Amino acid sequence: MTDQEWKIDRYSGIPLHKQIEDFIKRKIIHGEWTVGTKLPSQRALAARFQVNRSTVVEAMGELYAQGLVEGKTGGGTKVCNNTWSLLSAYASLDWNSYVKKGSYHPNFSIIQKINREEFNEEIIRLGTGELSKDLLPVSKMESVIKKMSFSKVALGYEEPKGNIILRQTVSKHLERYDIQASPSNILIVSGALQALQLVSFGLLKKGSIVLAESPSYLHSIKFFQSGGTQVIGVPMDKDGVKTSLLRQYKQQLSTDLLYTIPSFHNPTGITMSEARRKELQKLCREEQLPMIEDDVYRDLWLDDPPPPPLKSKDKEGNILYVGSLSKTASPGLRVGWIIGPEPVIERLADIKMQTDYGTSALSQSIAAEWLSEGYYDEHLKVIRSALKRRREKALQLLQTYFGGSAHWTIPAGGFYIWITFPKEIRVHELFEKALKRNVLINPGNIYDPAASSCIRFSYAYSSMQDLEKGIKVLAEIMEELGGSR
Amino acid sequence: MTDQEWKIDRYSGIPLHKQIEDFIKRKIIHGEWTVGTKLPSQRALAARFQVNRSTVVEAMGELYAQGLVEGKTGGGTKVCNNTWSLLSAYASLDWNSYVKKGSYHPNFSIIQKINREEFNEEIIRLGTGELSKDLLPVSKMESVIKKMSFSKVALGYEEPKGNIILRQTVSKHLERYDIQASPSNILIVSGALQALQLVSFGLLKKGSIVLAESPSYLHSIKFFQSGGTQVIGVPMDKDGVKTSLLRQYKQQLSTDLLYTIPSFHNPTGITMSEARRKELQKLCREEQLPMIEDDVYRDLWLDDPPPPPLKSKDKEGNILYVGSLSKTASPGLRVGWIIGPEPVIERLADIKMQTDYGTSALSQSIAAEWLSEGYYDEHLKVIRSALKRRREKALQLLQTYFGGSAHWTIPAGGFYIWITFPKEIRVHELFEKALKRNVLINPGNIYDPAASSCIRFSYAYSSMQDLEKGIKVLAEIMEELGGSR
Ligand SMILES: Cc1ncc(COP(=O)(O)O)c(C=O)c1O
Ligand SMILES: Cc1ncc(COP(=O)(O)O)c(C=O)c1O
Repeated sequence: MTDQEWKIDRYSGIPLHKQIEDFIKRKIIHGEWTVGTKLPSQRALAARFQVNRSTVVEAMGELYAQGLVEGKTGGGTKVCNNTWSLLSAYASLDWNSYVKKGSYHPNFSIIQKINREEFNEEIIRLGTGELSKDLLPVSKMESVIKKMSFSKVALGYEEPKGNIILRQTVSKHLERYDIQASPSNILIVSGALQALQLVSFGLLKKGSIVLAESPSYLHSIKFFQSGGTQVIGVPMDKDGVKTSLLRQYKQQLSTDLLYTIPSFHNPTGITMSEARRKELQKLCREEQLPMIEDDVYRDLWLDDPPPPPLKSKDKEGNILYVGSLSKTASPGLRVGWIIGPEPVIERLADIKMQTDYGTSALSQSIAAEWLSEGYYDEHLKVIRSALKRRREKALQLLQTYFGGSAHWTIPAGGFYIWITFPKEIRVHELFEKALKRNVLINPGNIYDPAASSCIRFSYAYSSMQDLEKGIKVLAEIMEELGGSR
Repeated sequence: MTDQEWKIDRYSGIPLHKQIEDFIKRKIIHGEWTVGTKLPSQRALAARFQVNRSTVVEAMGELYAQGLVEGKTGGGTKVCNNTWSLLSAYASLDWNSYVKKGSYHPNFSIIQKINREEFNEEIIRLGTGELSKDLLPVSKMESVIKKMSFSKVALGYEEPKGNIILRQTVSKHLERYDIQASPSNILIVSGALQALQLVSFGLLKKGSIVLAESPSYLHSIKFFQSGGTQVIGVPMDKDGVKTSLLRQYKQQLSTDLLYTIPSFHNPTGITMSEARRKELQKLCREEQLPMIEDDVYRDLWLDDPPPPPLKSKDKEGNILYVGSLSKTASPGLRVGWIIGPEPVIERLADIKMQTDYGTSALSQSIAAEWLSEGYYDEHLKVIRSALKRRREKALQLLQTYFGGSAHWTIPAGGFYIWITFPKEIRVHELFEKALKRNVLINPGNIYDPAASSCIRFSYAYSSMQDLEKGIKVLAEIMEELGGSR
């Protein structure tokens, strides 16, 4: 990249003035701006970098302070030093080359941006896959913890597969879904995401192929790609992934694994029907296609419980089953689990030990209490009724503001509604324009590269007032973009 | 009832061997032991069920006869079939091929074994790098937590770099070591190990070269290799890594990074002298060689504080500095940090988000309290005096039992003594023989492939009585092996 082409990277997290400062320093270090060179005017620099003049002023201030430039008002600014001996006899390292070199792919820049903007207090978050703060069981968690006997909490390193009491509790917990798993078949993980990472590291390799619904949460995850695994989407209909197509995909591509979210799918909210589940189970047995069943939303049904997990009928041990407390209780705990045949669980546990020596022992103890002492079900009742109200409200609002133009799924549980806008609406434009107005959306193409007129909408996070405000802003932008009624 | 708890019922009237046969069949039916799974040895099964070995032999005979398991004497028994048509019409997947396929290297089998055996209650652990259970601040942690205001604890997902209060606290904490780091230069990790993993993923790639002391903790970690990075050892003397050699290594190999543990080195216990630190800093500046300074043992000095961290003099931002609460307070918290230039920290934070969406929020809140409220220093006093007593005792015991034959380092802090036995002693033999007698050691060749007559001894974990018992067992085995006085 030549300096001519160099642009401010607004998503890098590095302050803009710092980027400008560094840019100028590089010019000096590399001998492109030698001592005595006159710098462009502040106005020209501001235009060149497309920033406010104050940002340039800040950058220049630093350069003055470091003794690299000098100048009089009106007379222009000049490079006066290139050794900045005061600072260091040596140039500093080019860490940026390291940052670019690493084998691990960076997150989609839009996801990086979302991750950052989510901590901007001003913003209305229309896509966040997380319970609203007032639905988190703060006081219940507090009482769990304050009742806990600490002599039993392991403050030391834990067993590779995780705290045995928690694994016994999870084993018992899974019985309610008709899943039989002994503690030795359970690995405790730091959230369901980590389970997927361990599978990626432990069971897949460069060139492996994983099928997933299209769209899918899985497409938003980069570490499969970092490891050289391809994630290929298989279309869905209202009953879930299309098993007819799935068989073709499996036969034509040498597929290693199917990843599926059969209940309250992320991002579409769709629940796989009972008949489709049977077809899928049959297909996977016949084709010897192993599966990851990601069931983190199962207990968030709002009308009726979903059909039993695929795993409950899995006599062959073909399915790895993933669960988590993040969606029903607290993502901050970072506790999830993965169930599977022993050789697989041993392998993943070994990698887990290499990765972080196990999940927070404290989190594990709290999770065990939470699951065994009735808190789980009690709290589920509370959030179910709240989510139900939120879902109704959201559906009403969508009808009001997008009734004639967009269409959307109606979820029977979970957090998500998948909204498809008219083709004229390009979701990256919608994203940028909405962000300028402090509304954050999750563009559909994170979950399916082709879904460039869709968004994942979540009714779980923002307050109902904010949901309305946000949707209104979207409707206004749509009108602007010409996609409205 | 879970399988872990399952017991033979001696009053049921069902023959014991039949109960065992049925238990194993259930494991196979439920897909917990899939085709290819290796069964525990007959001896282990007999111990597990508390029956005579002949009872197990009888049960296995049935399983052989039914074609469910196969195997040769000595070669172990494997599940070979789960199709016995009554149960299931389909063969189960060959998960073992998946387990072998994954890109991630398994841990050294000896480390896997150590990880498992550490949870065997009978065993005396002579190498464990962890505070003894009675040195963990159980009641202090309890009071920290019980005083905590939960409204402030984030139960939701955290910011990419970690809880801001904790980062502010760490920033303040680092001032005592003369390290200047603002919260935006700090990433909270789930233990120091994770920091190293993030560096491996984020800053290195296939073919990268990392230098480390020889021996080093780093050699025991496999994920660098999994990513195709080579870790090359540079010899040490009593003052730390030999900088004279280091320069040659750096010039001859295109080195990406130096990893060093300057204070109370793992596994040798050596502390880098002040003069050596200066040389190293100079070298790294001149050669533009960036460093990871792993300083997790710093505060465990027993005689005098070690020289200031390398990072405290790092004006160029060449050093990534790693710390953790695992060695001074509680490994179970899984809280550590890495400090570095902002582009690096941003990059690592992005990967952290992809990996586990952040460290347990609860652990982070507790860590912040621990570091800010004086608990840290108070507890350090307690463990320093205990470790000091333990070190004296350990050195006495070594003198008594190995006085004429082995030699060892004398650490000024931390946990470790590096013992070198006479060449006749092969450490893998020592390991196996000791394990048979319920004594677990950490063989030196985990930390340096060439250190096949060394062990890492830790005086931090086992009780003083157990240390003595264990050392006595080692001395006896040594005599057997012909390496003794
Ligand atoms: C389908 C699915 N799986 C896994 C996860 C990750 O959950 P956790 O917080 O338990 O890592 C999410 C969260 O967004 C999800 O939607
Ligand atoms: C030098 C060194 N670094 C890092 C670690 C990992 O510590 P943590 O438990 O904080 O991940 C250890 C633990 O053995 C260690 O000895």
